[in-house]
Amino acid sequence: MTSSTEHEGLQSHTAAILIIGNEITTGRTQDQNAQFLTQELDRLGIATHEIRMIPDDEDMIVRSINTLRQYHTYVFTTGGIGPTHDDITAASIAKAFNVPLERHHEIEKIIETRKKNYPVVKATYRMADIPKNAKLIGNPLTQIPGFNIENVYVLAGVPSIMRGMFDALKDNLHHDTITHSKTIDCNLPESHLADGLATIQNHFQAIKIGSYPYQQEERWRVNIVLRAKDEQLLEKAHQEVITLIESLGGEALPL
Amino acid sequence: MTSSTEHEGLQSHTAAILIIGNEITTGRTQDQNAQFLTQELDRLGIATHEIRMIPDDEDMIVRSINTLRQYHTYVFTTGGIGPTHDDITAASIAKAFNVPLERHHEIEKIIETRKKNYPVVKATYRMADIPKNAKLIGNPLTQIPGFNIENVYVLAGVPSIMRGMFDALKDNLHHDTITHSKTIDCNLPESHLADGLATIQNHFQAIKIGSYPYQQEERWRVNIVLRAKDEQLLEKAHQEVITLIESLGGEALPL
Repeated sequence: MTSSTEHEGLQSHTAAILIIGNEITTGRTQDQNAQFLTQELDRLGIATHEIRMIPDDEDMIVRSINTLRQYHTYVFTTGGIGPTHDDITAASIAKAFNVPLERHHEIEKIIETRKKNYPVVKATYRMADIPKNAKLIGNPLTQIPGFNIENVYVLAGVPSIMRGMFDALKDNLHHDTITHSKTIDCNLPESHLADGLATIQNHFQAIKIGSYPYQQEERWRVNIVLRAKDEQLLEKAHQEVITLIESLGGEALPL
Repeated sequence: MTSSTEHEGLQSHTAAILIIGNEITTGRTQDQNAQFLTQELDRLGIATHEIRMIPDDEDMIVRSINTLRQYHTYVFTTGGIGPTHDDITAASIAKAFNVPLERHHEIEKIIETRKKNYPVVKATYRMADIPKNAKLIGNPLTQIPGFNIENVYVLAGVPSIMRGMFDALKDNLHHDTITHSKTIDCNLPESHLADGLATIQNHFQAIKIGSYPYQQEERWRVNIVLRAKDEQLLEKAHQEVITLIESLGGEALPL
């Protein structure tokens, strides 16, 4: 196990995101959580190396968690922490860490306190059962917390609740040097630029240059995205891409 | 290696989807391909067991492909098969299968034929280099094909192109018994239903019942989704959920 503190001295912190829910793997729901988390993590200088989306299946949750938490500074999960029978994330995380699932008294109290707005039935208390020694993650929207155990952060699946939880935890993450980016929108087809872009990429090894074609009114255009930690270097490469586009008779628009 | 034909006699075919691209793992782009593929596969009775999203990174592509192709009937990848330097999917797939990357003459011909609409430069021919012995997958939109090697199907990342490729290949997949589903929209909070739903789920083991809360005008509602291969059983469980909702004073709307 690699704990987040062991990574403190390292240059780059990485994250994995585990989206849990049959609604995603059957295509019923378009996931919105992965993009929110990757964008937020990117702003903090934490690179998402992997996103996995799996059904509400204990074996798959246990296996995925135990793989991902070894390889990444942080693992964020979404989904499966509500009160119904298909909410099996908390129990599966406990199993992955080989600790018991325990009734958490602070969550019990929260359930009692919010009674006036949310009805309480036996199943409601399922949300108070979390892995032993897990720390709570605040939930400004519906109060019932997420939880954190070692480098794994367990968040709700409902996007509005998940976002509140991430806001509540993000100041505890070890920040890294922020990655800057510049995007150029260009009216040339991608293949026209390919040789020149490869030369620029070769010259600027510390910059990641991506090329993303799209169609607009039957014509193909392309977005060129440059990403780097070093802003001055980024600006230099950015100018070279603009020069390349113009030398090929194209138009480079900032985006 | 598990080839798709070995699965022909089995009851259930499974799929994994591998979404490749830095634009996804940095949050720049909201992926649309996973949901399209899961929905299409679901209609064919093929259950998606896992979706992974990774950067344009050779090691990660090789490792992911070699894991996923062992465990699933089919693996579908999207992204990284264009002409630019960051398009490394074809070479990585060749490496995963330990076969050389070879210039494919049929693709070369397609590049020549579509010259009037698409400019040809040296880099264009990168799209003609695919793993040895891979079969081509048609591309009705921009002609340059995807490819298939054993149980792995390699598709474009641009959603419109990817969809055309999937349409071109889907009749070759081994269909399975189709899964039927019914959704009920309900004005009760999820926890109110939880105990009753658990009882119904227990009673109907062959049905998957999911519960998905959402907020509308400050109030929480829930969608109950029932999924099963057996339509009659599905109808029975559906009626029981409606009866449960009405017995709790709620309103059950079909969705």
